[in-house]
Amino acid sequence: MARAFGATTIYIHQHDENIKKTIEEVNKRFGGDFIVSSVNNWRKLIESWNGVIVHLTMYGIPLPEVKDEILSTINNRDLLIIVGAEKVPSDVYKKATFNVAIMNQPHSEVSSLAIFLYDLFPESMRNSLFNKSQLKIIPTAHGKKVIKNQ
Amino acid sequence: MARAFGATTIYIHQHDENIKKTIEEVNKRFGGDFIVSSVNNWRKLIESWNGVIVHLTMYGIPLPEVKDEILSTINNRDLLIIVGAEKVPSDVYKKATFNVAIMNQPHSEVSSLAIFLYDLFPESMRNSLFNKSQLKIIPTAHGKKVIKNQ
Repeated sequence: MARAFGATTIYIHQHDENIKKTIEEVNKRFGGDFIVSSVNNWRKLIESWNGVIVHLTMYGIPLPEVKDEILSTINNRDLLIIVGAEKVPSDVYKKATFNVAIMNQPHSEVSSLAIFLYDLFPESMRNSLFNKSQLKIIPTAHGKKVIKNQ
Repeated sequence: MARAFGATTIYIHQHDENIKKTIEEVNKRFGGDFIVSSVNNWRKLIESWNGVIVHLTMYGIPLPEVKDEILSTINNRDLLIIVGAEKVPSDVYKKATFNVAIMNQPHSEVSSLAIFLYDLFPESMRNSLFNKSQLKIIPTAHGKKVIKNQ
């Protein structure tokens, strides 16, 4: 999902060969240069991040209340979005520029990321064909249509 | 995520005790009556559905192009949203009232559901406290705050 919205890299704490392979296959067929990077020391990544850090958590400030501030803070700087799979250490809450709640209710972290990207960067949806794509999907009301790029 | 947006039921093909337990625990702590229902015959569910069926698939029509039509078709009727975990049989494409693409690019099915609900029913986000909730999250800029409901 992050790839489809134009993100450049996913950093994963602990190496996951399956994710890496899946993404490489998607890149090959549908194009783009989305990178899967394994991170051994995520604290170092956060501390050395030269840009804005958004941590998505149900304990944070509701997105509509901080959206404008986030957009003006980003202002072309690099954006790191943190989604924790399990219990997130408290220093992440402190180091994040923004702790943002999609909803103050339990919900999946992947969904939070999707909604955050969709809400902040809707224009990314329009630009849905990547460079070096082998395949292109033709939207269809009741079926599947895929063409090969020449 | 579907629960947080006010859905009433998730139908799962093939029984999944883990999902059931997780949801029951969330209901207990954060309230609401979200139901996990195991379905042996999903075709029967689709065929007997008295309402609107939306199938989320990257092969479908982009959401912005059909959103208004979907909303006017729903018009208080029951809505069944289908997200296929693996290869979806062709009759689902035929039986669905709408085949909708969040993006015509590969992306996770859970994310599609989240974005679809977020886009069509944004008001659900505001009403984020359920009945019978034991806990309530107080949005916080840099930390966690949860209170017990009396």
